[in-house]
Amino acid sequence: MSERLIVIGGGGAGTAASTIAKRANPDMRVAVFSEFPDIAYSPCGIPYAHGREIPEFQNLFLSTVQRYVEDGLEMNMETTVTDIDLDRRTVTARNKHEGFDKLILCTGFHWEQPAVPGANLEGLHYVKDIRRAIEFDKELDSMKRAVIIGGMWLGVEMAGALARRGLEVQFIDEGPWLLSELVDPDVAEPAQEALEKLGVNVRMGTKLLGFAGGPDGRVRAVSTSAGELECDVAVICLHKLPNTSLASSIGLSLGTTGAVVVDDHMRTSAPGVWAAGDVIEVPHGLSMLPISGLTGSHAYSQGRVAGANAAGENRTYDPVWIPWGFMSGDYTIGGFSIGETLAEAMGIPYVVAKGVGVSRARYFPGAARTHVKLIAEPGTLRLIGAQLHGGEGIKERCDFLAFVGKRGATLEDLAWMENIYSPPIGALYEPIQIAAQNGLAEQKARQREAVPA
Amino acid sequence: MSERLIVIGGGGAGTAASTIAKRANPDMRVAVFSEFPDIAYSPCGIPYAHGREIPEFQNLFLSTVQRYVEDGLEMNMETTVTDIDLDRRTVTARNKHEGFDKLILCTGFHWEQPAVPGANLEGLHYVKDIRRAIEFDKELDSMKRAVIIGGMWLGVEMAGALARRGLEVQFIDEGPWLLSELVDPDVAEPAQEALEKLGVNVRMGTKLLGFAGGPDGRVRAVSTSAGELECDVAVICLHKLPNTSLASSIGLSLGTTGAVVVDDHMRTSAPGVWAAGDVIEVPHGLSMLPISGLTGSHAYSQGRVAGANAAGENRTYDPVWIPWGFMSGDYTIGGFSIGETLAEAMGIPYVVAKGVGVSRARYFPGAARTHVKLIAEPGTLRLIGAQLHGGEGIKERCDFLAFVGKRGATLEDLAWMENIYSPPIGALYEPIQIAAQNGLAEQKARQREAVPA
Repeated sequence: MSERLIVIGGGGAGTAASTIAKRANPDMRVAVFSEFPDIAYSPCGIPYAHGREIPEFQNLFLSTVQRYVEDGLEMNMETTVTDIDLDRRTVTARNKHEGFDKLILCTGFHWEQPAVPGANLEGLHYVKDIRRAIEFDKELDSMKRAVIIGGMWLGVEMAGALARRGLEVQFIDEGPWLLSELVDPDVAEPAQEALEKLGVNVRMGTKLLGFAGGPDGRVRAVSTSAGELECDVAVICLHKLPNTSLASSIGLSLGTTGAVVVDDHMRTSAPGVWAAGDVIEVPHGLSMLPISGLTGSHAYSQGRVAGANAAGENRTYDPVWIPWGFMSGDYTIGGFSIGETLAEAMGIPYVVAKGVGVSRARYFPGAARTHVKLIAEPGTLRLIGAQLHGGEGIKERCDFLAFVGKRGATLEDLAWMENIYSPPIGALYEPIQIAAQNGLAEQKARQREAVPA
Repeated sequence: MSERLIVIGGGGAGTAASTIAKRANPDMRVAVFSEFPDIAYSPCGIPYAHGREIPEFQNLFLSTVQRYVEDGLEMNMETTVTDIDLDRRTVTARNKHEGFDKLILCTGFHWEQPAVPGANLEGLHYVKDIRRAIEFDKELDSMKRAVIIGGMWLGVEMAGALARRGLEVQFIDEGPWLLSELVDPDVAEPAQEALEKLGVNVRMGTKLLGFAGGPDGRVRAVSTSAGELECDVAVICLHKLPNTSLASSIGLSLGTTGAVVVDDHMRTSAPGVWAAGDVIEVPHGLSMLPISGLTGSHAYSQGRVAGANAAGENRTYDPVWIPWGFMSGDYTIGGFSIGETLAEAMGIPYVVAKGVGVSRARYFPGAARTHVKLIAEPGTLRLIGAQLHGGEGIKERCDFLAFVGKRGATLEDLAWMENIYSPPIGALYEPIQIAAQNGLAEQKARQREAVPA
């Protein structure tokens, strides 16, 4: 009988792993186990459905379980794997033993819960499962005030969405500025202004102390270092933590981030067991330090690699340079790898190249300022990070910069890049080019100063 | 006395060369000679001002002659250089001799005139000088019918602009499809549809036979292989031809394209004489064959290199990979280097990788299909060209592809590129990635077929 692959988890990594494995080796029997009833929907779209920018939650469903079955996969939905036996090569689900030859763990993440009093009250909402989101969306109709416990970008997206929905929104975050773990203050500033423009009350440097409940056991206020904030709901958007209980139960090595350690083939420490997605950590391309809790597109790519390898291919996954980008209100910010703040924190020496360009010819309607900050290695001036904000094309530029940063591009390369100048779509100078040119000019000026007269 | 640099020409190359030379060597005396009264305006914006997408021609002026004077340049406007004496190191303008130590020729281009009867009639319009454009714009108010003699992208822009302006527009071109010298038929098709959507009557495969004049000596019809087309104006948008008369007069080497030959420092064949912009030819990065008549951003970059070197720096200009992009009606097309048609014509072996993605999450309002075709070298699968159409971010993607194509990126690299997935700005799969993945899958399938069973 042909080999059987079991994939645990039906999120981005799990669906990619199972699909690619079946495609690479059609003879392999591939079974997916998911504790949820749905497959192939977009969790990233949830805030936008709450904000009514996407008209219906149904739009977020991209495929059906039936389609996967038709593609030859065995789909075990709402079926939680409770145990794995590596010696017998079985998993236990619904008290049944299911044999496998190969196993891919894509058990994903759960949200960090705040360690404060009242964290178990009703009315604390976490954005994850789409069915819960659909229920929550109905509840929102009768809600007036929301407090977002910020930190990561989901908080920014949810704050914008609930403000668009018409709620009074308070956004609290302990950091000195918005998204201070990721973005630099100069990028955080316009992002915060954009939230405020939607009516969000942004309270930075504000510590969460606890939640106060009403007689019905539901949250009625959030207590913070800035006082008590009354609310109908508190949305918690802290860190993603890897779901490692199954992994731990079979003794897989966990890393410094607490996530499962894999090699560049997505192999765990146990033979015949791969892992992918939010449950694993992978090395950052610049520092080679492990990181976890990346994006949906990372989960998909890792799933593809794990699936291909479990099916007998030989596919490697490179260290990540993490292009990122999202909208804060109506304003786009993005980047890749590190900014100044993270470089400082990690003790990585750097120089900065900054510039402001426009997204179309400056006289063309719709042209918007695009701010580019490039982070480069001193001396070689190799690109090691970037942060951008404003205008159009942030996503495309950050993808570009991550790709060429990974491959050793320098400020010199970027300063002399060829670019499209066509008034409705691009300006005479590409904003990246302007930043790089400015950076080179500054380096040259410094070298001159450094030479004794 | 300090060295004097004379720059002939006040277009993109000339303004960049003079500005950069002065900045690099403030002691140098830098003089610009231009036959026109204006400096630093955007000729590329002219069609959009005719189409009223840009409300006023004044918006196209980016700076004034006075500003250049304040920056220390000697500006000789409306001053045509009629002669150059390389031995005496003088140019003649307004019957005066002006001495120089170094010279940069940025004499630009003129439009190819059709070699047919009636080509000297009044009412044949060429898009170039902004003052003439402003007059023409007034004349347009009383015009009803225009014939665009197409060929290059300016014709497409002008056809769209005059249709938006409310004229009946006929577009004729001898080629089998729109822009057949540059774009492939699959890209030309939606571009043509977009023009037709604006009401333009596109007549491909239509040969220009001549122009018929009325008793007033103005064009009243264009005779073509498809019959006589009545018109109030004919707009000629054929090829750019280099203005080499001054260059020839001093014996500078001209190349196979008829333009001035320069080395990678923008040096001409005469010592102390540089050239930049539409008057020169430069090697194409892929074929190393010389080409001329590139874009405004190329003219600027070449001008910067020539200016820096004339001022004593040591700056090289790389062979070009030519990212290009523009709008045909409301539709964007773009690419870099070669497409299939050009590869065929040049006898360059290639494989194609094609895919269709979306510019935002597919369920997000405003998401549009983005078609990507990558052209790669067989075997190595190195990227050697691309053509894209539709959606958002075409300009940014083509800049990206030209940059990484130049540096040896392969389909494999692009298939596994990291990308931003955030519903309002980017989809789960980047369109470039989809095309590359498809291309790899096809190559793999072919290899399998090629192996005897």
